[in-house]
Amino acid sequence: MNLEKLKELEKKIYNEIPMTRLMELKLVNIDDKYFKTSAPLDINVNDKGSAFGGSLSSIAIISSWCLSKLISDELGFENVDILVIKNHSSFKKQVTNDIVCLCTIPTQKEINILKEKLKTKESASLKIHAKIVQDDETCMDYEGIYVIKKR
Amino acid sequence: MNLEKLKELEKKIYNEIPMTRLMELKLVNIDDKYFKTSAPLDINVNDKGSAFGGSLSSIAIISSWCLSKLISDELGFENVDILVIKNHSSFKKQVTNDIVCLCTIPTQKEINILKEKLKTKESASLKIHAKIVQDDETCMDYEGIYVIKKR
Repeated sequence: MNLEKLKELEKKIYNEIPMTRLMELKLVNIDDKYFKTSAPLDINVNDKGSAFGGSLSSIAIISSWCLSKLISDELGFENVDILVIKNHSSFKKQVTNDIVCLCTIPTQKEINILKEKLKTKESASLKIHAKIVQDDETCMDYEGIYVIKKR
Repeated sequence: MNLEKLKELEKKIYNEIPMTRLMELKLVNIDDKYFKTSAPLDINVNDKGSAFGGSLSSIAIISSWCLSKLISDELGFENVDILVIKNHSSFKKQVTNDIVCLCTIPTQKEINILKEKLKTKESASLKIHAKIVQDDETCMDYEGIYVIKKR
Protein backbone atom coordinates (compact mmCIF):
# COMPACT_ATOMS: atom_id res chain seq x y z
CA MET A 1 0.00 0.00 0.00
CA ASN A 2 1.43 3.37 -0.92
CA LEU A 3 1.52 6.71 0.87
CA GLU A 4 -0.64 8.32 -1.81
CA LYS A 5 -3.49 6.02 -0.74
CA LEU A 6 -3.05 7.20 2.87
CA LYS A 7 -3.04 10.87 1.83
CA GLU A 8 -6.25 10.29 -0.12
CA LEU A 9 -7.93 8.63 2.88
CA GLU A 10 -6.69 11.41 5.19
CA LYS A 11 -8.27 13.98 2.86
CA LYS A 12 -11.52 11.97 2.79
CA ILE A 13 -11.83 11.81 6.59
CA TYR A 14 -10.87 15.50 6.97
CA ASN A 15 -13.73 16.36 4.62
CA GLU A 16 -16.30 13.96 6.03
CA ILE A 17 -15.41 13.72 9.76
CA PRO A 18 -14.54 17.27 10.94
CA MET A 19 -13.27 16.09 14.36
CA THR A 20 -10.35 14.25 12.69
CA ARG A 21 -9.21 17.57 11.20
CA LEU A 22 -9.75 19.45 14.48
CA MET A 23 -7.68 16.90 16.43
CA GLU A 24 -5.03 17.16 13.65
CA LEU A 25 -4.87 13.41 13.07
CA LYS A 26 -2.21 12.29 10.55
CA LEU A 27 -2.16 8.95 8.75
CA VAL A 28 1.60 8.36 8.92
CA ASN A 29 2.44 5.03 7.29
CA ILE A 30 1.63 1.36 6.94
CA ASP A 31 3.88 -1.70 6.80
CA ASP A 32 3.43 -5.45 7.23
CA LYS A 33 2.98 -5.12 10.97
CA TYR A 34 1.35 -1.78 11.79
CA PHE A 35 -0.72 1.08 10.47
CA LYS A 36 0.61 4.19 12.23
CA THR A 37 -1.24 7.46 12.94
CA SER A 38 -0.36 10.46 15.08
CA ALA A 39 -1.74 13.67 16.54
CA PRO A 40 -0.14 16.59 18.40
CA LEU A 41 -0.39 16.75 22.21
CA ASP A 42 -1.18 20.48 22.42
CA ILE A 43 -4.66 20.42 20.91
CA ASN A 44 -5.41 17.02 22.53
CA VAL A 45 -4.22 17.92 26.03
CA ASN A 46 -6.18 17.51 29.30
CA ASP A 47 -6.27 19.25 32.69
CA LYS A 48 -3.17 17.31 33.81
CA GLY A 49 -1.01 18.37 30.82
CA SER A 50 -1.14 14.84 29.37
CA ALA A 51 -3.24 13.53 26.47
CA PHE A 52 -7.03 13.67 26.90
CA GLY A 53 -8.52 10.16 27.20
CA GLY A 54 -11.31 11.16 24.81
CA SER A 55 -8.74 12.05 22.16
CA LEU A 56 -6.85 8.77 22.69
CA SER A 57 -10.11 6.84 22.27
CA SER A 58 -11.15 8.86 19.23
CA ILE A 59 -7.76 8.35 17.62
CA ALA A 60 -7.83 4.57 18.23
CA ILE A 61 -11.44 4.35 16.95
CA ILE A 62 -10.84 6.27 13.72
CA SER A 63 -7.39 4.77 13.06
CA SER A 64 -8.83 1.25 13.35
CA TRP A 65 -11.72 2.35 11.12
CA CYS A 66 -9.22 3.64 8.55
CA LEU A 67 -7.33 0.32 8.65
CA SER A 68 -10.63 -1.55 8.08
CA LYS A 69 -11.30 0.79 5.12
CA LEU A 70 -7.80 0.26 3.66
CA ILE A 71 -8.21 -3.52 3.92
CA SER A 72 -11.72 -3.54 2.37
CA ASP A 73 -10.50 -1.33 -0.49
CA GLU A 74 -7.50 -3.61 -1.04
CA LEU A 75 -9.85 -6.62 -1.22
CA GLY A 76 -11.89 -4.82 -3.92
CA PHE A 77 -14.89 -3.98 -1.70
CA GLU A 78 -14.90 -0.20 -2.01
CA ASN A 79 -18.64 0.39 -1.89
CA VAL A 80 -19.18 -0.42 1.81
CA ASP A 81 -20.14 1.30 5.06
CA ILE A 82 -17.86 0.57 8.00
CA LEU A 83 -19.09 0.96 11.59
CA VAL A 84 -17.54 0.33 14.98
CA ILE A 85 -20.00 -1.74 17.02
CA LYS A 86 -18.09 -2.50 20.22
CA ASN A 87 -14.80 -1.51 21.77
CA HIS A 88 -12.82 -1.47 24.98
CA SER A 89 -9.76 0.41 26.14
CA SER A 90 -7.31 0.12 29.04
CA PHE A 91 -5.41 3.25 29.99
CA LYS A 92 -2.06 2.19 31.44
CA LYS A 93 0.15 5.26 31.44
CA GLN A 94 -0.32 8.97 30.77
CA VAL A 95 0.84 10.23 27.36
CA THR A 96 3.06 13.30 27.74
CA ASN A 97 4.33 13.68 24.16
CA ASP A 98 2.66 13.82 20.77
CA ILE A 99 0.23 10.92 20.39
CA VAL A 100 1.28 7.87 18.35
CA CYS A 101 -1.23 5.11 17.55
CA LEU A 102 -0.25 1.71 16.12
CA CYS A 103 -2.99 -0.52 14.71
CA THR A 104 -1.94 -4.14 14.27
CA ILE A 105 -2.46 -5.43 10.72
CA PRO A 106 -4.79 -8.47 10.93
CA THR A 107 -3.23 -11.83 10.01
CA GLN A 108 -3.48 -13.13 6.43
CA LYS A 109 -5.87 -15.79 7.76
CA GLU A 110 -8.20 -13.13 9.23
CA ILE A 111 -8.08 -11.16 5.97
CA ASN A 112 -8.87 -14.31 3.95
CA ILE A 113 -11.90 -15.06 6.16
CA LEU A 114 -13.10 -11.46 5.72
CA LYS A 115 -12.70 -11.74 1.94
CA GLU A 116 -14.69 -14.99 1.76
CA LYS A 117 -17.49 -13.53 3.90
CA LEU A 118 -17.71 -10.34 1.84
CA LYS A 119 -17.89 -12.43 -1.34
CA THR A 120 -20.93 -14.38 -0.16
CA LYS A 121 -22.65 -12.22 2.50
CA GLU A 122 -23.97 -8.68 2.90
CA SER A 123 -21.63 -7.86 5.77
CA ALA A 124 -18.66 -9.15 7.74
CA SER A 125 -16.84 -8.09 10.88
CA LEU A 126 -13.20 -7.46 11.67
CA LYS A 127 -11.50 -7.22 15.07
CA ILE A 128 -8.79 -4.56 15.22
CA HIS A 129 -6.23 -4.20 17.97
CA ALA A 130 -4.55 -0.81 18.44
CA LYS A 131 -2.30 0.76 21.03
CA ILE A 132 -1.13 4.25 21.90
CA VAL A 133 2.63 4.13 22.49
CA GLN A 134 5.31 6.38 23.94
CA ASP A 135 9.02 5.45 24.24
CA ASP A 136 8.24 1.81 23.34
CA GLU A 137 5.72 1.58 26.16
CA THR A 138 2.00 0.95 25.68
CA CYS A 139 0.00 3.79 27.22
CA MET A 140 -3.41 2.60 26.04
CA ASP A 141 -4.61 -0.74 24.69
CA TYR A 142 -7.66 -0.79 22.41
CA GLU A 143 -9.74 -3.44 20.73
CA GLY A 144 -12.66 -2.67 18.45
CA ILE A 145 -15.07 -4.73 16.37
CA TYR A 146 -15.85 -3.19 12.99
CA VAL A 147 -18.72 -4.24 10.74
CA ILE A 148 -18.20 -3.86 7.00
CA LYS A 149 -21.58 -3.66 5.20
CA LYS A 150 -22.07 -3.68 1.46
CA ARG A 151 -24.19 -0.71 0.30
CA MET B 1 -26.19 20.82 42.80
CA ASN B 2 -26.87 24.05 40.96
CA LEU B 3 -26.43 25.11 37.34
CA GLU B 4 -23.76 27.65 38.31
CA LYS B 5 -21.54 24.74 39.39
CA LEU B 6 -22.03 23.12 35.95
CA LYS B 7 -21.22 26.39 34.14
CA GLU B 8 -18.03 26.69 36.22
CA LEU B 9 -16.99 23.11 35.38
CA GLU B 10 -17.81 23.68 31.69
CA LYS B 11 -15.55 26.76 31.70
CA LYS B 12 -12.78 24.76 33.41
CA ILE B 13 -12.84 21.94 30.84
CA TYR B 14 -13.07 24.40 27.91
CA ASN B 15 -9.90 26.07 29.24
CA GLU B 16 -8.00 22.92 30.12
CA ILE B 17 -9.22 20.34 27.56
CA PRO B 18 -9.46 22.13 24.18
CA MET B 19 -11.21 19.20 22.45
CA THR B 20 -14.29 19.67 24.69
CA ARG B 21 -14.62 23.23 23.33
CA LEU B 22 -13.98 22.12 19.73
CA MET B 23 -16.68 19.43 19.94
CA GLU B 24 -18.99 22.07 21.52
CA LEU B 25 -19.85 19.93 24.54
CA LYS B 26 -22.45 21.45 26.88
CA LEU B 27 -23.02 20.41 30.50
CA VAL B 28 -26.82 20.65 30.48
CA ASN B 29 -28.18 19.67 33.90
CA ILE B 30 -28.10 17.21 36.76
CA ASP B 31 -30.91 15.67 38.81
CA ASP B 32 -31.26 12.67 41.14
CA LYS B 33 -31.05 10.20 38.27
CA TYR B 34 -28.86 11.61 35.50
CA PHE B 35 -26.16 14.09 34.62
CA LYS B 36 -26.97 15.26 31.09
CA THR B 37 -24.58 16.65 28.47
CA SER B 38 -25.00 17.40 24.79
CA ALA B 39 -23.11 18.31 21.61
CA PRO B 40 -24.25 19.34 18.13
CA LEU B 41 -24.29 16.75 15.34
CA ASP B 42 -22.79 19.01 12.65
CA ILE B 43 -19.27 19.33 14.05
CA ASN B 44 -19.36 15.70 15.33
CA VAL B 45 -20.63 14.12 12.12
CA ASN B 46 -19.09 11.16 10.24
CA ASP B 47 -18.92 10.00 6.61
CA LYS B 48 -22.43 8.49 6.91
CA GLY B 49 -24.07 11.74 8.12
CA SER B 50 -24.53 10.29 11.62
CA ALA B 51 -22.52 10.98 14.78
CA PHE B 52 -18.81 10.03 14.69
CA GLY B 53 -18.10 7.09 17.05
CA GLY B 54 -14.98 8.89 18.28
CA SER B 55 -17.09 11.88 19.34
CA LEU B 56 -19.64 9.64 21.10
CA SER B 57 -16.80 7.94 23.00
CA SER B 58 -15.12 11.24 23.86
CA ILE B 59 -18.42 12.70 25.09
CA ALA B 60 -19.15 9.65 27.28
CA ILE B 61 -15.57 9.67 28.64
CA ILE B 62 -15.50 13.37 29.56
CA SER B 63 -19.12 13.49 30.78
CA SER B 64 -18.43 10.56 33.14
CA TRP B 65 -15.22 12.29 34.21
CA CYS B 66 -17.20 15.48 34.95
CA LEU B 67 -19.71 13.51 37.02
CA SER B 68 -16.81 11.95 39.01
CA LYS B 69 -15.45 15.47 39.55
CA LEU B 70 -18.84 16.85 40.67
CA ILE B 71 -19.23 13.97 43.14
CA SER B 72 -15.68 14.34 44.55
CA ASP B 73 -16.19 18.10 44.95
CA GLU B 74 -19.53 17.53 46.67
CA LEU B 75 -17.82 15.10 49.09
CA GLY B 76 -15.25 17.79 49.93
CA PHE B 77 -12.33 16.23 48.01
CA GLU B 78 -11.54 19.04 45.60
CA ASN B 79 -7.78 18.61 45.40
CA VAL B 80 -7.72 15.37 43.38
CA ASP B 81 -6.70 14.11 39.95
CA ILE B 82 -9.32 12.01 38.17
CA LEU B 83 -8.33 9.54 35.45
CA VAL B 84 -10.25 7.05 33.35
CA ILE B 85 -8.44 3.70 33.55
CA LYS B 86 -10.71 1.33 31.65
CA ASN B 87 -13.87 1.59 29.57
CA HIS B 88 -16.04 -0.21 27.09
CA SER B 89 -18.76 0.88 24.69
CA SER B 90 -21.45 -0.84 22.63
CA PHE B 91 -22.75 1.03 19.62
CA LYS B 92 -26.35 -0.03 19.04
CA LYS B 93 -27.89 2.53 16.72
CA GLN B 94 -26.63 5.45 14.64
CA VAL B 95 -27.22 8.92 16.10
CA THR B 96 -28.80 11.21 13.51
CA ASN B 97 -29.67 14.23 15.68
CA ASP B 98 -27.74 16.35 18.15
CA ILE B 99 -25.93 14.14 20.64
CA VAL B 100 -27.38 13.67 24.13
CA CYS B 101 -25.42 11.82 26.82
CA LEU B 102 -26.95 10.68 30.13
CA CYS B 103 -24.60 9.57 32.92
CA THR B 104 -26.32 7.61 35.66
CA ILE B 105 -25.78 9.09 39.13
CA PRO B 106 -24.14 6.37 41.29
CA THR B 107 -26.26 5.01 44.16
CA GLN B 108 -25.98 6.55 47.63
CA LYS B 109 -24.30 3.30 48.72
CA GLU B 110 -21.60 3.65 46.02
CA ILE B 111 -21.06 7.31 46.97
CA ASN B 112 -20.74 6.38 50.67
CA ILE B 113 -18.13 3.71 49.86
CA LEU B 114 -16.20 6.26 47.78
CA LYS B 115 -16.33 8.78 50.62
CA GLU B 116 -15.04 6.26 53.19
CA LYS B 117 -12.19 5.21 50.86
CA LEU B 118 -11.16 8.81 50.15
CA LYS B 119 -11.13 9.54 53.90
CA THR B 120 -8.65 6.76 54.63
CA LYS B 121 -6.77 6.05 51.38
CA GLU B 122 -4.80 7.94 48.75
CA SER B 123 -7.16 6.99 45.94
CA ALA B 124 -10.47 5.33 45.20
CA SER B 125 -12.29 4.24 42.07
CA LEU B 126 -15.79 4.86 40.77
CA LYS B 127 -17.66 2.99 38.04
CA ILE B 128 -19.79 5.27 35.84
CA HIS B 129 -22.45 4.12 33.42
CA ALA B 130 -23.44 6.45 30.59
CA LYS B 131 -25.55 6.19 27.47
CA ILE B 132 -26.08 8.20 24.32
CA VAL B 133 -29.81 8.47 23.68
CA GLN B 134 -32.08 9.57 20.86
CA ASP B 135 -35.91 9.46 20.97
CA ASP B 136 -35.81 7.42 24.21
CA GLU B 137 -33.63 4.78 22.57
CA THR B 138 -30.09 3.93 23.68
CA CYS B 139 -27.69 4.41 20.75
CA MET B 140 -24.49 3.75 22.71
CA ASP B 141 -23.89 2.13 26.10
CA TYR B 142 -20.74 3.08 28.01
CA GLU B 143 -19.10 2.00 31.23
CA GLY B 144 -15.90 3.55 32.55
CA ILE B 145 -13.79 3.09 35.67
CA TYR B 146 -12.44 6.35 37.06
CA VAL B 147 -9.67 6.62 39.64
CA ILE B 148 -9.78 9.60 42.00
CA LYS B 149 -6.31 10.28 43.42
CA LYS B 150 -5.51 12.78 46.14
CA ARG B 151 -2.76 15.20 45.06
